[in-house]
Amino acid sequence: MMKPELRIGLVGSGFMGRCHANAFHSVGGLFDLPFEPVCETLADISEEAGALNAATLGFARATGDWRTLCADPSIDVVAGIAPNVLHEPIVIAALSAGKHVYCEKPLSTTLKSAQRITKAVQEAGVVTMVGFNFLRNPMIRLARELIEAGEIGEIVSFRGRHAENYMADPHVPHSFRTDPDGGGALADIGSHIISMARYLLGQITQATGQCRTIHKTRPIALGSTEHLPVLVDAVTFALVEFKGGAVGTIEANWAASGRTMDLSWEITGTKGALAFSQEGMNELVFCKGSGGGRTSGFTKIEAGPSHPPYGNFCPAPGHHLGFNDLKVIEVAQLIDAIGGGFNPGPDFQEALEVQKVVSKIATSCS
Amino acid sequence: MMKPELRIGLVGSGFMGRCHANAFHSVGGLFDLPFEPVCETLADISEEAGALNAATLGFARATGDWRTLCADPSIDVVAGIAPNVLHEPIVIAALSAGKHVYCEKPLSTTLKSAQRITKAVQEAGVVTMVGFNFLRNPMIRLARELIEAGEIGEIVSFRGRHAENYMADPHVPHSFRTDPDGGGALADIGSHIISMARYLLGQITQATGQCRTIHKTRPIALGSTEHLPVLVDAVTFALVEFKGGAVGTIEANWAASGRTMDLSWEITGTKGALAFSQEGMNELVFCKGSGGGRTSGFTKIEAGPSHPPYGNFCPAPGHHLGFNDLKVIEVAQLIDAIGGGFNPGPDFQEALEVQKVVSKIATSCS
Amino acid sequence: MMKPELRIGLVGSGFMGRCHANAFHSVGGLFDLPFEPVCETLADISEEAGALNAATLGFARATGDWRTLCADPSIDVVAGIAPNVLHEPIVIAALSAGKHVYCEKPLSTTLKSAQRITKAVQEAGVVTMVGFNFLRNPMIRLARELIEAGEIGEIVSFRGRHAENYMADPHVPHSFRTDPDGGGALADIGSHIISMARYLLGQITQATGQCRTIHKTRPIALGSTEHLPVLVDAVTFALVEFKGGAVGTIEANWAASGRTMDLSWEITGTKGALAFSQEGMNELVFCKGSGGGRTSGFTKIEAGPSHPPYGNFCPAPGHHLGFNDLKVIEVAQLIDAIGGGFNPGPDFQEALEVQKVVSKIATSCS
Amino acid sequence: MMKPELRIGLVGSGFMGRCHANAFHSVGGLFDLPFEPVCETLADISEEAGALNAATLGFARATGDWRTLCADPSIDVVAGIAPNVLHEPIVIAALSAGKHVYCEKPLSTTLKSAQRITKAVQEAGVVTMVGFNFLRNPMIRLARELIEAGEIGEIVSFRGRHAENYMADPHVPHSFRTDPDGGGALADIGSHIISMARYLLGQITQATGQCRTIHKTRPIALGSTEHLPVLVDAVTFALVEFKGGAVGTIEANWAASGRTMDLSWEITGTKGALAFSQEGMNELVFCKGSGGGRTSGFTKIEAGPSHPPYGNFCPAPGHHLGFNDLKVIEVAQLIDAIGGGFNPGPDFQEALEVQKVVSKIATSCS
Repeated sequence: MMKPELRIGLVGSGFMGRCHANAFHSVGGLFDLPFEPVCETLADISEEAGALNAATLGFARATGDWRTLCADPSIDVVAGIAPNVLHEPIVIAALSAGKHVYCEKPLSTTLKSAQRITKAVQEAGVVTMVGFNFLRNPMIRLARELIEAGEIGEIVSFRGRHAENYMADPHVPHSFRTDPDGGGALADIGSHIISMARYLLGQITQATGQCRTIHKTRPIALGSTEHLPVLVDAVTFALVEFKGGAVGTIEANWAASGRTMDLSWEITGTKGALAFSQEGMNELVFCKGSGGGRTSGFTKIEAGPSHPPYGNFCPAPGHHLGFNDLKVIEVAQLIDAIGGGFNPGPDFQEALEVQKVVSKIATSCS
Repeated sequence: MMKPELRIGLVGSGFMGRCHANAFHSVGGLFDLPFEPVCETLADISEEAGALNAATLGFARATGDWRTLCADPSIDVVAGIAPNVLHEPIVIAALSAGKHVYCEKPLSTTLKSAQRITKAVQEAGVVTMVGFNFLRNPMIRLARELIEAGEIGEIVSFRGRHAENYMADPHVPHSFRTDPDGGGALADIGSHIISMARYLLGQITQATGQCRTIHKTRPIALGSTEHLPVLVDAVTFALVEFKGGAVGTIEANWAASGRTMDLSWEITGTKGALAFSQEGMNELVFCKGSGGGRTSGFTKIEAGPSHPPYGNFCPAPGHHLGFNDLKVIEVAQLIDAIGGGFNPGPDFQEALEVQKVVSKIATSCS
Repeated sequence: MMKPELRIGLVGSGFMGRCHANAFHSVGGLFDLPFEPVCETLADISEEAGALNAATLGFARATGDWRTLCADPSIDVVAGIAPNVLHEPIVIAALSAGKHVYCEKPLSTTLKSAQRITKAVQEAGVVTMVGFNFLRNPMIRLARELIEAGEIGEIVSFRGRHAENYMADPHVPHSFRTDPDGGGALADIGSHIISMARYLLGQITQATGQCRTIHKTRPIALGSTEHLPVLVDAVTFALVEFKGGAVGTIEANWAASGRTMDLSWEITGTKGALAFSQEGMNELVFCKGSGGGRTSGFTKIEAGPSHPPYGNFCPAPGHHLGFNDLKVIEVAQLIDAIGGGFNPGPDFQEALEVQKVVSKIATSCS
Repeated sequence: MMKPELRIGLVGSGFMGRCHANAFHSVGGLFDLPFEPVCETLADISEEAGALNAATLGFARATGDWRTLCADPSIDVVAGIAPNVLHEPIVIAALSAGKHVYCEKPLSTTLKSAQRITKAVQEAGVVTMVGFNFLRNPMIRLARELIEAGEIGEIVSFRGRHAENYMADPHVPHSFRTDPDGGGALADIGSHIISMARYLLGQITQATGQCRTIHKTRPIALGSTEHLPVLVDAVTFALVEFKGGAVGTIEANWAASGRTMDLSWEITGTKGALAFSQEGMNELVFCKGSGGGRTSGFTKIEAGPSHPPYGNFCPAPGHHLGFNDLKVIEVAQLIDAIGGGFNPGPDFQEALEVQKVVSKIATSCS
């Protein structure tokens, strides 16, 4: 009666690595899955770092070389959290070895690279998933179900943004985020709101943008007096059109003073509206009908067991899921898909589509 | 020691006419003004309607012809609330007779017409004002003062909209609002958010839009089975750029299910941010600094006597101004300007500038 | 076809006097009333003050003696705004002269005084009204209608407060508010939440409280170094029971840091709940059902024409009424009642009942 | 360099058992602890249930008898989640065997029982902790730090409640929650707001209440037609006084229509105020100063790395902790305390103090 094991190889041990490790440890106690995930091997920047972090993150073994991990026949799933520029080689290696691959967003730093990756997937025939974890929120799933059921009628407009303040301070130094090849606010966080827009409303057919850099230079390291120019956007606004006919705007802003996580949107339909912000991630705001009645208005729905899979975490409403719980849901969906269940995505193909929209907007800005 | 009288002639007796009459009656008891406004003559669609409505609205005399009113030497100020298509002839007649002119927005239905009007103003040398009453809000004035004082640093972005649901229902019939000449959501309510954007951040140098009609036909009258096509926009999104360098978006949406008065914006600066919605018109939300400190975040400022001219209405904070109070402030500013005081506008020239932005966006959509 | 006149005599010209004057001037243009109110005479502290303020507030005549006003046969209604300690003699004089009387809250400073007044009313047979203007809010009326219609089932509990910060600063000097005879937070603002509790849920049968003074002394005047002890409450909490069986708490707090106008409550019923705060006076929050459904939760209803008499001020929802508009509604109700229409109160008898609850709580604290 | 193990024995496998298991599995990857927690043995209602649930929850061994677990020398910590009536025997057995004990709230069902337990602790000299997990929230810790630093001055008042709707439906059957011995809203959830009040403001010296049962009978099981009377409170309101001088109210309400987790309070001080609701558990609302300034008001602080131990879960603000994360923090504090670090409690003595307040209010109601 023991479940078969699913052996995980994790590449990277930073913030998201810890988040992945935590999810693989927790998921078995919270979800009824076809496999028992086993944290097998951690690949880090060195043997030493690997050994240290494997102990902390609860992995049985460690390596200083991700190639070893990808080639290891005892590994079933490669989870890739490494710097964005390494996504392509790691993923291709894993795919070539027939592993299921679970990659953090963005899939890659350039459209061409992402296209090479998706081509490799078609040949591998494995399960792929990209870590757009904000889509795992039960309230986002509820929003999609309400839209699909026609509860807000035909979609008229979408007003979305992902605004944070983590680059508002000009003293924040250069990093992979400001790398001209694949960096910038649009690629980094704009991809979240684009993926959510597609998840909720489908294909984006047109996209035109305007971007700004704000701080023209940044230090090469924290506290350094040496500055280099910043060549990527800090804020981008875009006009978008959806295949279904809706129009709207998308904003990506990493210099949004005061905003910590305003991944938010309002969707207007002919018979109602929905609104959401990640700053209140356990709430969905819903207006049934166009309004104007004696008791009509926006209703604040709080997450609870009637919004799967919230009940896997808590049997009572209002107790709140957190960011790390979204990763647990993502991992549960991955394992279900590997067991032959439904893969809700985003798979690598969908991640490529998101990147195409990013690319279209970026091109229109320049 | 009696104040000199300022005799008002009002053209039109509908909703906004009543609102104007109320403001002229109230303003003397609430503000210390250079003149005593006197509600002298009401011009209506007929002698009979005029007599009836003059009694209700507290005007001493009535006429069925606005030309008579404009030519009457006993009138000092012509306040024009009539249908938009009549704005030009009424305003030109009033200007020709040397009256001060107070006109509801929009100044006119076409850019050419608005340009003819502003040309006439230059020759008349009188005080003009357009009823963009949402600008009169003490919290909007506070926002501008904070921006001008550099409290939020350099302006990065503007995210504005005016969203209401009054045309969401397809049974709402055709009216002047859907008239191809000067109608549509962008002209009707987009002008409010554009005027506010200019009031707060200055000149809009670039503007490109996308628009949708939503309901393709509407009945010719309420309940009628005869339908005519709708040729104007119900929702328009635009990318905008300001002279100062900021970028952003503007939305005009009169089919915004659930929204009653979301004339709202968020302004991001390098050192802070401000946010406002007319749905909470007595509040301004202010983040000092870019955020991230132990006790930093958005502060909800509630209107009070430290936000002039709130104190003219109430000596204690939190008691709330209402929509009609904004009109009283507008009328107080008009009378002060006629007495030689500062004219905060929008005067007719500023209204023309707003209309130019409307026109630029509309042209880009087609 | 002219309406008969209703001649108003106003006693007092401070903040509330201005508010009353404004309401009498505005009401005719906004409501269809049986009389035309005429601002006839202002009684002030002296002839000179009266003459000056009558000009500003738009009254035809002035007097320095309220006795003259009360005795004047040309006056139909006496509106009393004078200091609380004068309410009894003014009201008794007006009643004796057969005037309708409209008195600001509180009806008087002591329970005995209020009882003498209500006794005098019974003999006079006139219309009386007390200025509990927060009850005039269309959203409060909607709340009562929903409760009466059983929309939230049987009432379980009431959680109310009136919290402001106007006495939080220890430098605010003594005034009538801190007079041991009739002063204190419970009497001054607790009376508002008690009147609202009664308006919504009926008779309060039990009430027990706890009170605190906070600042033990205050200067005798602003900036004075001479201090006198404060003998009244700054904050009072009470447990209350309603005749219908509900239990709850009432708080009066005039040292509530950060609160400008939190006259607020939540009413829980077996089939739903309602919540309100004067800080968002144009909103009522309503949960239909006890919650837990997939799309259930609290709905924010925004004031609009479907909430009478909002439509008298504005034909579109979301435009907001303000504090002074509530006074206009109050005056409209007064004039309707004088014309033989329904008197929604609070009349003097109801004001006495409110004062009895205040007294019961105050007694239990000492 | 391997950390010493800390072997956990868990009694109970329901909702809270799963929550505990998850916390013990996750905590090592998120916190730097003196021990490596090992999920050793699960005690369940039978051998079979134990075996099944141990597999799911990741425990190495299982037993059908908690006595075996408590006596097992290989167990270091007994975590007790079993039904409330079993808390005393389990805890006493664990203490007698010299185990550290981690017990879910309430410590026991009666005051006498809780007193017997705390007496046993004094003799055992072990670490104890009670699962008042809402206290673990970084925003609650921030609130306490701000209060202790005098940021809101002297405390004037406390307005607290714990309101949920899980018993609003009369069809919810009898359970341990409605057991006359230790049940009722005040004991079940009132204990949360009481523990938080004590955590933030210290000792409660006076407490008087009013309670109501609401639904007088409930079915003996879901869907049963057999009903038994309900003898416990569904809603209780109490007046409270704190040793420091503050007054206030506490509400416990499990029939609060529309409320899912309104564990909330507002604390007013002479120089500021703080407000919190578990429905927005990642936010603390803070007014510095008593208000009234041009830009003063309540600031919404969002949880982030500057609020320990948020940063253990996520390096960026605004990403949200969830309910289960609070349990992880609790477990980290437990393990730290066992390692000789600071025990922030609530230990069993503190849980007894909470129960005394519950008892005092309950007694005053009857």
